[in-house]
Amino acid sequence: MPTIAYLGPENTNTHLAARKRFGSRARYVHAPTVDEVFHLVERRRADYGVVPIENSLEGAVTHTLDRFIDFQDTPVAIHGELEEPIKHYLILARGVQWSDLKLVFSHPQALAQCHRWLSTHLGHVSLRETNSTADAVLHVLQNRSVRAAIGRRELARQHRLRAVPVPEERENKTRFLILGLGEPKRGKRNKTSILFALKDKSGALHDALVPFKNNRINLTKIESRPSKRKAWEYLFFIDLEGHETEPRVTRALRVLQRHTTLLRVLGSYPMSTR
Amino acid sequence: MPTIAYLGPENTNTHLAARKRFGSRARYVHAPTVDEVFHLVERRRADYGVVPIENSLEGAVTHTLDRFIDFQDTPVAIHGELEEPIKHYLILARGVQWSDLKLVFSHPQALAQCHRWLSTHLGHVSLRETNSTADAVLHVLQNRSVRAAIGRRELARQHRLRAVPVPEERENKTRFLILGLGEPKRGKRNKTSILFALKDKSGALHDALVPFKNNRINLTKIESRPSKRKAWEYLFFIDLEGHETEPRVTRALRVLQRHTTLLRVLGSYPMSTR
Repeated sequence: MPTIAYLGPENTNTHLAARKRFGSRARYVHAPTVDEVFHLVERRRADYGVVPIENSLEGAVTHTLDRFIDFQDTPVAIHGELEEPIKHYLILARGVQWSDLKLVFSHPQALAQCHRWLSTHLGHVSLRETNSTADAVLHVLQNRSVRAAIGRRELARQHRLRAVPVPEERENKTRFLILGLGEPKRGKRNKTSILFALKDKSGALHDALVPFKNNRINLTKIESRPSKRKAWEYLFFIDLEGHETEPRVTRALRVLQRHTTLLRVLGSYPMSTR
Repeated sequence: MPTIAYLGPENTNTHLAARKRFGSRARYVHAPTVDEVFHLVERRRADYGVVPIENSLEGAVTHTLDRFIDFQDTPVAIHGELEEPIKHYLILARGVQWSDLKLVFSHPQALAQCHRWLSTHLGHVSLRETNSTADAVLHVLQNRSVRAAIGRRELARQHRLRAVPVPEERENKTRFLILGLGEPKRGKRNKTSILFALKDKSGALHDALVPFKNNRINLTKIESRPSKRKAWEYLFFIDLEGHETEPRVTRALRVLQRHTTLLRVLGSYPMSTR
């Protein structure tokens, strides 16, 4: 039975994504931070780790990207990706009047995603950020009459609280990474994630993209992050379609290498089918 | 006397950056959110607005980027940029023992930047996120014996609290934008910020960078953000060296236009000299 470490606590979006992927024949351990999920996999205390990487409304989860920058020698590779629709609920105790609400708790990303709805319907309440949607519900349990939380319906069920769906007209999905040691399994259609630093010369980013264009490799994602060594110096994350052992990908990476001071393949793994 | 709106409250990093730029012969009004700073400039309640755009360790301030995406028809243009070194202090009441500290309050970016130092020296304390470094100090005033805040030295002075510098081996700077209506002033060396959406075809990002390469235009920054209309569809922000009225820039933008479904010049403005 494999052990799966996930960004917890229980019933967060990451936990539910992990359970959908690995099912009931796995042991689950939660970690309080992205860093700790990596640690558990690095020390073989977990076979796989699950962390969020990107939300379709809020963008990159920078903690996860930066973990690859801060520990460039990690043996952890990306073994797969998961995609989950996110549906927010306003969680409050039975019988509470909206007009009595004074505080709404949630994870900053959830608050940001519900911002428009909250300001229209609960403009009078103060918002409080918590480390997770699960923590937000614990704050509600402390004072059920004036507090509410934003989180998944499962969290309301767990504590027998009422849940009102927050309407969302935009596509709200989160993408998660599966982390592991060793060689990732290969899928029918694969994706490769790379991290690189450009040489300091004019047109460097253009030059870095040429080998992908020439080898007809589709890029699904590009993200820049501060190097943290020098102000306004950046590292780049690129996701591309193809496996690193495919000749066209090998060729492109070999040319890219000439334009970079650092190039790391974070993993080649099956593309999410959803 | 011009009126300057800034992301407040008083004595935040944004306030001090604004004061350095506009001096004492200006009236200052603080706004609680980035959105509200834009609003004040849009309604001519302020002549200029000052908001953070990027930190050298934490990366883009996504609220500011997303305001340009969410309100693409805003008459607000970027009129300039400012750069400020960030120096964090642990702010605590006189006579407090470190071993008594239970909670450290600050803005999430400040907590993230001091994370390593805090976990080494104050591993036993809990961290609490606040909307600003100034708000964090208000939490200290409520219970001086067990609480500390992270913020600028000026905040400690204002409330007569003790400030211990947090050592930082990495370059920590924040870049701010000056927002305004009408035509920005022109400097000796100028920079242009653009926002664009690519046509959905393979190699689109490469093709978008070609006109800059061909016209020898240096890009100082590229940032991608979710379009929020469709999952995994992105918009791009690019900063380039040159003024939009320079022939080589005009030429490049005209070619770029062919590869985009949206192209907006957010402003041409003097480059920060620091």
